Amino acid sequence: MPELRKDPILDRWVIIAAERGHRPLPPSGEAELPLMPNGPFTAGNEDKTPAEVFAVRPPGSPANGPVWDVRVVPNRFPALQVEGQVDPRAVGLFDAMNGVGAHEVIIETPRHDVDLSDLPPGHVEKVLTAYTERIRDLRRDLRLRYHCVFRNRGAAAGATLRHPHSQLIATPIIPALPKAKLAAAREHFRRKERCLFADLIDQERRDGSRVVLESAHHLVLAPYASRSPFELVVYPLRQCHDFTLLTDAERADLAAVLVGVLRRVRAALGDPAYNYMLFNAPSTSARPGRPDYWGTLAHDWRWHLEILPRVTGTAGFEWGTGFHINPVAPEEAAAFLRQAS
Amino acid sequence: MPELRKDPILDRWVIIAAERGHRPLPPSGEAELPLMPNGPFTAGNEDKTPAEVFAVRPPGSPANGPVWDVRVVPNRFPALQVEGQVDPRAVGLFDAMNGVGAHEVIIETPRHDVDLSDLPPGHVEKVLTAYTERIRDLRRDLRLRYHCVFRNRGAAAGATLRHPHSQLIATPIIPALPKAKLAAAREHFRRKERCLFADLIDQERRDGSRVVLESAHHLVLAPYASRSPFELVVYPLRQCHDFTLLTDAERADLAAVLVGVLRRVRAALGDPAYNYMLFNAPSTSARPGRPDYWGTLAHDWRWHLEILPRVTGTAGFEWGTGFHINPVAPEEAAAFLRQAS
Repeated sequence: MPELRKDPILDRWVIIAAERGHRPLPPSGEAELPLMPNGPFTAGNEDKTPAEVFAVRPPGSPANGPVWDVRVVPNRFPALQVEGQVDPRAVGLFDAMNGVGAHEVIIETPRHDVDLSDLPPGHVEKVLTAYTERIRDLRRDLRLRYHCVFRNRGAAAGATLRHPHSQLIATPIIPALPKAKLAAAREHFRRKERCLFADLIDQERRDGSRVVLESAHHLVLAPYASRSPFELVVYPLRQCHDFTLLTDAERADLAAVLVGVLRRVRAALGDPAYNYMLFNAPSTSARPGRPDYWGTLAHDWRWHLEILPRVTGTAGFEWGTGFHINPVAPEEAAAFLRQAS
Repeated sequence: MPELRKDPILDRWVIIAAERGHRPLPPSGEAELPLMPNGPFTAGNEDKTPAEVFAVRPPGSPANGPVWDVRVVPNRFPALQVEGQVDPRAVGLFDAMNGVGAHEVIIETPRHDVDLSDLPPGHVEKVLTAYTERIRDLRRDLRLRYHCVFRNRGAAAGATLRHPHSQLIATPIIPALPKAKLAAAREHFRRKERCLFADLIDQERRDGSRVVLESAHHLVLAPYASRSPFELVVYPLRQCHDFTLLTDAERADLAAVLVGVLRRVRAALGDPAYNYMLFNAPSTSARPGRPDYWGTLAHDWRWHLEILPRVTGTAGFEWGTGFHINPVAPEEAAAFLRQAS
C-alpha cells in the first residue's frame, strides 16, 4: 500500500509509492520517447491494460474491444491504490495516512504516432468528455477530495510512453497547491465580494498585452508572473467553478482552443515537451465528520488549465527558494504566440 | 533591469530576467556537460570572468591572478542586478519590484574535471569559508533580505558548465519556501518553546531508520517525507540558526560530512546530477521602515542543507498539486547509503 506522508516543517504531503519503482522506464537521457506501434495503448492490445472504466465508442461496440475513440483504464503502476481506508495517523511528530486514491490513464486515441494537437477538435471534445465523466464518477467516492487531471507530453515532461494519453489522480486530501489557490480566491471574495479570477480576467482583457487568444467562451493568457517561457493558462469567460459543468457548446469551444493553442506552441517552439494541469473545484461531497466549508466556491473559484512547455529546467535556486527565473517576459511570449499559426 | 513579479493568486514571486536568455547554453538533451579544459573558470583565464569579489589564495598572490584555491565572481548573466532601488509598486491587481540583488559564482577549484566530492575535505572547507564570507559581506546591503547558496551539478540539475562551482543569489524579499519554513518554525516555538528542528533531530536519532551518518557536529538524514529517492538533509547538532556562525571545527566537520555523503551518493547512484541548497537565517539587519520581526530566530530556527539527487523528474501531477511521488522509501535510501562507501 502506498503511504502519504506530510513534511514536518511544511504543509507538503508526498506519496511514497515503492510499487511504482517497478514500472518500465525509457532509457534515461533520451530526448524523444520511442514510437510503439504495438504498444499497450494501441487498438487490438486492450488486453494489455486493466479493464476500462470508461470509453467513448461507437454504439454497440463491446467494452474492451478494439473499436474505440477514447479509453480510460486504471494505471498499471498506480501512485495510489483504490482499496482500503485512509486511516490518518501520527507517527511521533509526523503525519501519515494510507495511499488511498485513484490513478487512471485516459488513452486519447488509438493512434500511437500523433500528439493531442494533431487530432481534430471534435475528437479532443471526446477526451474532455472522458475527463468530465471520470471526475463525476470518482466524486461519488467520499474518501477522495481532489481530482487532478494532467497531461505529460515528452520525456522532459515526465512522460514514459509516447502514445497520446492524459492521467487522472484522485487524492484523499486537497493538495497544497490547489489548496493555496482556493484559499486565496476565498479570501479575495470574502474581502471584496468579487471573484479573484473575474478581476484578473477583466484586467488582462483591458490590457491585452498578455492575451494569446480569446474564443466565444475562453481566454488564453501568458500569466503576469509566468514561471517559465511560454507558460499559458486557459480560463472560462463565464463564472464556472467546476469543469464538469461545461455545456456541450463550451466543451466544443475548449477543444478547439486547446488544439489551437497547442499547435501555436508547437509552431513557435518546435514540438517542445509540455505538461498541462487542470485546476478544478475540489469535491464538495460531505464526508462523515468533515464539514463542507466550500460555501462560496461557485462564486469565488473558477476552473483553469495551466499549460507548461518544459523549455527551462529547475535548478538549485528554484528548489531552495520556490522562486523561478524566467528569461522571457510573458508579454513577448504572448505577442509571439499571437502571430504563430 | 530584471523585474520581480508576484503571482496574483499565490504568494509566489518570479524573476523575469530577459538578459539571462542570452547566456550560452549547452546543446539541449545532452546527458553530460562537456569538459572545458580552457573554460572561463580555469586558472589563467581570470580575465574571462568579472573581477573577483572574494578569493582564497596563497598569501601574497595578486587578486585576479592565476594562483588561487577558491574564487568568487559576479555571474556574467545575472538573474538579479546589483545597481538600483527595489521600488515596490502595484500594477493594477499585480505586484512588481525591480530585480535588485546579487548573483555570484563560487568557483570551487581551478580544476575543471572533478566534482566537489573529489576534492580533499580541507579544500571543501575553503569553499564553505567562501559561502560564509560572501553572505556576511552581502548582509551589509540592507536592500537584500535573503541569501540562497546552491549548487547545480550536471545538466539534469540545471548546470550549464561542468567546472565545479556553486552560486549565491541574494534577493530583496524572503522567498516563499524559506518564508514558509521560517513561519512554521516560529509557530512551533511559540506554542512549545522548543525548536522544531531540535524535536525533529531528537526523534530521528532515537528512531535511527532514516539516519545516514552522524559526525561530531552534524547529522545527515533521509527526510521522513522525502520528495524524491535519496533526498538528504544535513543538520547541525548544536542549536545554530546562522551558517555564518559555524566555528572552525564545525566548518571542518561539515566539509568532511559533505564530501563523505556526496561520495556515498555517487557510489550508490552512479554519479547522478544533483542540487544542494542552503536554508539559512534571513538577514536581520534593520531596514528603514521595516520592523525586525525575527526576535526568536536564534532559538526557533536552525540552518540546514538539502541535497537533491535528480533521479526522478517532475511531471504534470507535481505541477498541478505540489505533491511529489517518490518510489523509494527514505528508510530504504538511508539503509542503502549507510552501507555505501
